[in-house]
Amino acid sequence: MHEILIEEKILARNDEIAAENRLALSDKGIYTINLVSSPGAGKTSLIESMADELKKLPVSFAVVEGDLEGDFDAKRVERRGVPALQITTGRACHLDAHQVSHSLQWVFGHAGLELLIIENVGNMVCPAEYDLGEDAMITVMSTAEGDDKPLKYPAIFTASELLVINKTDLAPYTDFDITKARENALKVNPYLKIFETSCRTGEGVKEFATYLAELAKAKRRS
Amino acid sequence: MHEILIEEKILARNDEIAAENRLALSDKGIYTINLVSSPGAGKTSLIESMADELKKLPVSFAVVEGDLEGDFDAKRVERRGVPALQITTGRACHLDAHQVSHSLQWVFGHAGLELLIIENVGNMVCPAEYDLGEDAMITVMSTAEGDDKPLKYPAIFTASELLVINKTDLAPYTDFDITKARENALKVNPYLKIFETSCRTGEGVKEFATYLAELAKAKRRS
Repeated sequence: MHEILIEEKILARNDEIAAENRLALSDKGIYTINLVSSPGAGKTSLIESMADELKKLPVSFAVVEGDLEGDFDAKRVERRGVPALQITTGRACHLDAHQVSHSLQWVFGHAGLELLIIENVGNMVCPAEYDLGEDAMITVMSTAEGDDKPLKYPAIFTASELLVINKTDLAPYTDFDITKARENALKVNPYLKIFETSCRTGEGVKEFATYLAELAKAKRRS
Repeated sequence: MHEILIEEKILARNDEIAAENRLALSDKGIYTINLVSSPGAGKTSLIESMADELKKLPVSFAVVEGDLEGDFDAKRVERRGVPALQITTGRACHLDAHQVSHSLQWVFGHAGLELLIIENVGNMVCPAEYDLGEDAMITVMSTAEGDDKPLKYPAIFTASELLVINKTDLAPYTDFDITKARENALKVNPYLKIFETSCRTGEGVKEFATYLAELAKAKRRS
């Protein structure tokens, strides 16, 4: 009981800082997404694949990477010519609003930024509870994972606005049923907008990037 | 700072209960493994695949399943004729020793049990810190995940005695380099014993099951 009260306090404080982040980001007209998934679902690959599409549209964007250790992902994204900042969480299994607040000075250093992609630590549980101040949470699941994931990790699917079913190129070699995955996801959250992508074949990447670009442009106009 | 102290207290209390679990399980001569991975790496499929092999050897075994919600995994295992108990963790992203202690009465109800497999919640971070009282932690990673996972989630690989590289049948369709994954894993933990398995082709499953059986038999003799 004691433990639960402490957790509620931590979450309440997180929500306060998230609200401040949201206000600051909105002030600058930056549309922000919080990209979550289990480890290895392909979040970084998706960002890499989208990079060229977003540049073509064009949308000005930057990436904040959350990982336990190292800066492997930030380096991968930078190699695509995208500004990237690495946050290392140490032992924490998720980003929190406080960590993100420290990245905002760097974010705001990029004049005219329209889209900020925050790539969370690979985890299907705790990121659901930690608002970062984003406009939309996007869950990525891969066809190598099992189409029952929405039923087993419902909180993250409920907290998300968008779902990306990634690695569709692998589906023929697995027991993953994309129709069933869609049904399971919509059972948990009927409002989910769902995209299907493959970073290997490029399937769906342009559509997803274009949709994010539209959201970002709409935010800037509002 | 306050937050860290509370976490240390929780972990210290967990370690105490884990030690009690370990003593109780050892008293009964039950070899216990704590199976961890990211969501969808194939822990439950691996248990299903091993079930027939373990019965042939024969090894008497049971499974405790940890999930946020539902009893999908326990039902899957039971359909293979294996006794299974489901623990639901609610919002918690990992099993803890206290939850496992409550399952021991059920475990000890199975006379002559030699091997207990505890399947943890899918998470590559927090299970590393929560000792359950097991003899060995086993990490499962799939070839769909990326061969850099040991470098990005080092704690779980350091805490593990064994590593299973699963879904080897998918490797030809991904950028996963099994040699590099082995190197990365051994860089983080040089003592890791590594198996390669595919639940679709059956590759390596018998070897892995036999190895666990030998560990269980050795424990019983000791």
